Amino acid sequence: MTEHEMAEIFEKNRSILITGVTVENRTVDIFVDEKGTIGSIGPGVRKHHQGEADFVIDGDGAIAIPGFVNTHTHAAMTLLRGYADDMVLQDWLVQKIWPLEAHLTGEDVYWGTRLACLEMIRTGTTAFNDMYFFMDEAARAVDDAGVRAVLSYGFIDLNDPEKREKECRATESLAARIRTLGNPRIAAAAGPHAVYTVSPEGLQWCAEFAREEKIGIHIHLAETEKEVTDCVEQHGKRPAAHLDACGVLTPRTLVAHCCWLNEAECALLGERGTSPSHNPASNMKLATNRAMPYHWLSLAGANITLGTDGCASNNSLDMFGAAKTAALLQKFFWNNPTLLPAPEALRMATINGAKALGLPTGRLVKGAPADIVLVATRAAANTPLHHATSNLVYACSGGEVETTLCNGRVLMLNREIPGEDEVLAGAAGAASALVKRAGSCKGDS
Amino acid sequence: MTEHEMAEIFEKNRSILITGVTVENRTVDIFVDEKGTIGSIGPGVRKHHQGEADFVIDGDGAIAIPGFVNTHTHAAMTLLRGYADDMVLQDWLVQKIWPLEAHLTGEDVYWGTRLACLEMIRTGTTAFNDMYFFMDEAARAVDDAGVRAVLSYGFIDLNDPEKREKECRATESLAARIRTLGNPRIAAAAGPHAVYTVSPEGLQWCAEFAREEKIGIHIHLAETEKEVTDCVEQHGKRPAAHLDACGVLTPRTLVAHCCWLNEAECALLGERGTSPSHNPASNMKLATNRAMPYHWLSLAGANITLGTDGCASNNSLDMFGAAKTAALLQKFFWNNPTLLPAPEALRMATINGAKALGLPTGRLVKGAPADIVLVATRAAANTPLHHATSNLVYACSGGEVETTLCNGRVLMLNREIPGEDEVLAGAAGAASALVKRAGSCKGDS
Repeated sequence: MTEHEMAEIFEKNRSILITGVTVENRTVDIFVDEKGTIGSIGPGVRKHHQGEADFVIDGDGAIAIPGFVNTHTHAAMTLLRGYADDMVLQDWLVQKIWPLEAHLTGEDVYWGTRLACLEMIRTGTTAFNDMYFFMDEAARAVDDAGVRAVLSYGFIDLNDPEKREKECRATESLAARIRTLGNPRIAAAAGPHAVYTVSPEGLQWCAEFAREEKIGIHIHLAETEKEVTDCVEQHGKRPAAHLDACGVLTPRTLVAHCCWLNEAECALLGERGTSPSHNPASNMKLATNRAMPYHWLSLAGANITLGTDGCASNNSLDMFGAAKTAALLQKFFWNNPTLLPAPEALRMATINGAKALGLPTGRLVKGAPADIVLVATRAAANTPLHHATSNLVYACSGGEVETTLCNGRVLMLNREIPGEDEVLAGAAGAASALVKRAGSCKGDS
Repeated sequence: MTEHEMAEIFEKNRSILITGVTVENRTVDIFVDEKGTIGSIGPGVRKHHQGEADFVIDGDGAIAIPGFVNTHTHAAMTLLRGYADDMVLQDWLVQKIWPLEAHLTGEDVYWGTRLACLEMIRTGTTAFNDMYFFMDEAARAVDDAGVRAVLSYGFIDLNDPEKREKECRATESLAARIRTLGNPRIAAAAGPHAVYTVSPEGLQWCAEFAREEKIGIHIHLAETEKEVTDCVEQHGKRPAAHLDACGVLTPRTLVAHCCWLNEAECALLGERGTSPSHNPASNMKLATNRAMPYHWLSLAGANITLGTDGCASNNSLDMFGAAKTAALLQKFFWNNPTLLPAPEALRMATINGAKALGLPTGRLVKGAPADIVLVATRAAANTPLHHATSNLVYACSGGEVETTLCNGRVLMLNREIPGEDEVLAGAAGAASALVKRAGSCKGDS
């Protein structure tokens, strides 16, 4: 490929033929039309599209998987990556995270989200479910980066009616703004933060607003034991029942963490068609002391998905790492080496995530948008290739990803991402300036 | 760098100047002499060595760390990577692992170990502690690959005096063979497998042999609860006390896993100067149901190190992943978010590991062998760079490693490893042939 071709392949509306790539143990070709849709997939597809495609990507030596869907993160918190770790939660929040967040600007959120998108593109994630502030700027970053996102403003009213009004307006404004964008890769969701930060009235308003607007709901649920005991004390119900009473549990709702659910709550989530997001690395790092009850949720038929959480509490957005950590943590905590096998971990990270966010992605089939990730098989981590799914979950990291397409557009080709240096510099600059503004010192490393 | 220079830099006995690299928050130059030793390290070193060095590596945009030391693995088990996962231990061993291992040849061990070395070089590990069979072939692979290893033959007598004799001879033969090699990168150790597979006489023999030969001892300890209860039943002592009674616990002894140690056993290991190897991913995957008591071992002053275990039960040799998993698992299992902070995880993976194996590596100081790994800072996972140590442990994977030197020799430069394709093909071929010989079918993925 010449330099000129290299530049052109990253542009929109190019038709692309990926030849000889491995999909679920078969060698196939994939034709992506100029609208970004998978036009055909199968053996011999190249015969029909060789002349037609603007570009050909040689898929020999690669496995193609659907782009990962990260169902819970706070993308712009990449700016806080490694700023403070290994602390008790309250000290960490009060002494480190909140003072920094108090100085956060819209421009910071733009660069933090661009950095997050860059990390995701490099590690095979093409869609994410975000909750943070200055979400107009997050939308701009997602648009520029070329990935998909469902964006929610973190609604926190702390039982204060005046604050609630403000949060309702902010939620409405984001939904309106995103509607105006008309970008098929960007959707809004309501983002009531959690049962301990949002009043019942606030929760009800979010549920009603999401229903009217036909958008999703994104909320934290049962992350800590304290959340459960406080909720029972305050509302006479465990958190899932409380959310249900407020109308929040719907098939469009994504509940993040779910560490402390009991069996009845798992059954309730299953009944309501609500999607849990497992965030194993964050839960371990913050010592939540219990792992999401995958087996109960699975029995209840819940659509279980996977998330990384934000970079302040993980500190990586690599979904390969999240999938492995999930598969390991479930086995370890629930003392069952057969729990959460590799194929289920891969489904959590792809098709289940897409379903949870209402996206038409998550599968490599004709007619689906081309969110395609090529993973190198000529790599130590993928050798031998007894079972591709096992290698993807247990052996590979984002380092094995070579090429990433989202909605048919090439975002990374053979590990090259146009504009990467500019994003790294912009984000590093924003992070330094933020720390300086907050008057903090960097400490040692 | 021209192609000719590229080829030459991978040869032995080249002096190398690494300029402008970040080491513990300082920008320094590192001069490596033609004997493979760090001749000087510090700011301005380039002034003295610019003309003298055969090659210059631009370290701008990289952090230099000592090569990782993986203190517990079965390297050749890379051939079984992904062959069988997510099973109950006994089924997994009886139905899958043992039938395959029964057909293993020396040639297989050569290619499996080459593949392991390749994965280690790519992910920043320059030394490992190995236990397996056909260890002459493992030694040949380590020699060819250019890394360091301590190699032990897995001594298993199952209380059978005849088998014991055979195992003693095999252990002696490996030690003699490795002495003959005279390779400063390769050492032998005695490898009594575990208290449940080796008789007290066998353990005593290994202890005595290691003392006479001034070599290390490598053994599994307290991996499962069953090991503890069986040992108490059979020997009237918990495993660590039993090993101590057999003379196995010395400052040259590496005890792997240590999940089920009690407080007194931790104190005993500390007293004896014995080094534990934490293998968090393997313990989680196999559902050992308890995490190594890091806090007790740490209080006892034990030299705690880090391992990946073999690829059948992890399935990756990436020590970045192991360090993160260790830091997460300790916090989670012992319910303390301040336990095993990032700087300690990095020490486990470097200086502590080197000390455990009696290696002069693990630190970047003048006079130490140049086992040096360059990690890209111009990468999403390393942006921003608030604290390099946090990023290394929590955000990076082996994918961020750009360049690896062992004993002063360049093994990977800017992600290029000479002969990589040959190793991948050799190992993939050996793995396929092994499965075919064992008459197993690959199953689905």
